[in-house]
Amino acid sequence: MQISSQIVSDAVEALSGFPGIGKRTALRLVMYLLKRPEMEVVRLAESLIKLKTDLFLCKSCGNVSDEEICSICSNHARNNGVVCVVEDFSDLMAIESTNQFGGRYHVLGGLISPMEGIGPDDLNIMSLVNRIEQDNIQEILLALSATVEGDTTMFYIAKKIKDTGVKITCIARGISVGGEIEYADEITLGRSILQRTEYQV
Amino acid sequence: MQISSQIVSDAVEALSGFPGIGKRTALRLVMYLLKRPEMEVVRLAESLIKLKTDLFLCKSCGNVSDEEICSICSNHARNNGVVCVVEDFSDLMAIESTNQFGGRYHVLGGLISPMEGIGPDDLNIMSLVNRIEQDNIQEILLALSATVEGDTTMFYIAKKIKDTGVKITCIARGISVGGEIEYADEITLGRSILQRTEYQV
Repeated sequence: MQISSQIVSDAVEALSGFPGIGKRTALRLVMYLLKRPEMEVVRLAESLIKLKTDLFLCKSCGNVSDEEICSICSNHARNNGVVCVVEDFSDLMAIESTNQFGGRYHVLGGLISPMEGIGPDDLNIMSLVNRIEQDNIQEILLALSATVEGDTTMFYIAKKIKDTGVKITCIARGISVGGEIEYADEITLGRSILQRTEYQV
Repeated sequence: MQISSQIVSDAVEALSGFPGIGKRTALRLVMYLLKRPEMEVVRLAESLIKLKTDLFLCKSCGNVSDEEICSICSNHARNNGVVCVVEDFSDLMAIESTNQFGGRYHVLGGLISPMEGIGPDDLNIMSLVNRIEQDNIQEILLALSATVEGDTTMFYIAKKIKDTGVKITCIARGISVGGEIEYADEITLGRSILQRTEYQV
């Protein structure tokens, strides 16, 4: 596509760096911005810059935060005894949205992945071990994706913290709610049978 | 979705204003930006602000431009006698990409649409009439979308400039290249028969 304006071309180039946004979509977004009031575009730009300049990583759990300690870690109403280990911030939010977890979190910042050159030392695993030793933590709930990387990371963490004597749990794997058995994959179905739970009447 | 950080929440809010981008996609984009170097995010933000502060609308044709007169209008190699009328900048680019048009453009900035409250006075139609009178223009090529709004706008412009004696043409409507007759809609197929062209051997 030929763009006659360098300014438009620069903006398209910058926006098409986003995952899932190609040149055409980027151009559509630029066209949209051209029609919006200047104030709105400036507000957008400022909010993006603030992401890099004003945002902290919580000193305790590694969650993104407006303060040094995030709103979850500083909330005394939450259960201090259970820590849920997640890959990143979006997983944390997904779990928060369920309203089923009242403890605290620990954000790893990724998963162990030899393919991408990410080892245990690149993740916030040591700080988790320190938290278990310092705080009075009774349970570590591992809530990582059911992938090779997720399983590897869970295994690594479990081995690392086993000696502290903390209880280690992991979120249930099974048929998703609303899912039909006929269409479930064999591994999930197999696991859901192995890990069957007592039916409550 | 519950976002614990106000800064993240503001960025998600701003990004989800884009057409076709919902809260979830906006959050994915924010997650992506959090992992990018600060310089890259600043460059993105600056390029967006520049769209509103440094960009001109070409005084002659209404195209977006880095200068007061756009690169197409100031290119003396282009044919000054034919002016292609388009709805907006993205249509202009689509036509430029074909490499089949060597004349100049006139960007209306929209189409007449009573439903959206857009009348002829909201578009760059008077400046087109002035151009025809001032410059030595022989042909006006109407390249507007084949919609009710497009047809209305073409009809309005054609009536408005008829008296100037300029030749008025319109891009061909018909079966798209690679299209199968069986699947073409009746109106398009009907028009392609009415407007049949001589077969060149």
